[in-house]
Amino acid sequence: MDIQYEIIENIVVLSESPKGWTKELNLVSWNGRDPKYDLRDWAPDHKKMGKGITLTKEEVLKLKESLGSFN
Amino acid sequence: MDIQYEIIENIVVLSESPKGWTKELNLVSWNGRDPKYDLRDWAPDHKKMGKGITLTKEEVLKLKESLGSFN
Repeated sequence: MDIQYEIIENIVVLSESPKGWTKELNLVSWNGRDPKYDLRDWAPDHKKMGKGITLTKEEVLKLKESLGSFN
Repeated sequence: MDIQYEIIENIVVLSESPKGWTKELNLVSWNGRDPKYDLRDWAPDHKKMGKGITLTKEEVLKLKESLGSFN
């Protein structure tokens, strides 16, 4: 099955591996649906996607709040 | 193959699904190795793990920084 996706907004690239895979937080629309926040590994040029997890806006806000004292 | 893991610290529970699965940021040690930050879905009582992604401390710090203006 083909998964259609569109990266609406790149929020941050967290890191890049020696092979060029990047760990990114993006706003992604899957199969034309409403976009979700998405923390995931991507191959160079976003040609392949690795493991990741989607987040709602509420979850991102709660994550932000919880990281306030992280150091 | 059995994966051994130990949740060293629960940082935040971001949400809970109607079936009781929770999306959490934890500090997790996999197979006795140095702990990593881990954003993942978990079944009730952490009996099963769902999809997720591990993060280094540097990645969590960069994520925190990037979310500073998120609202």
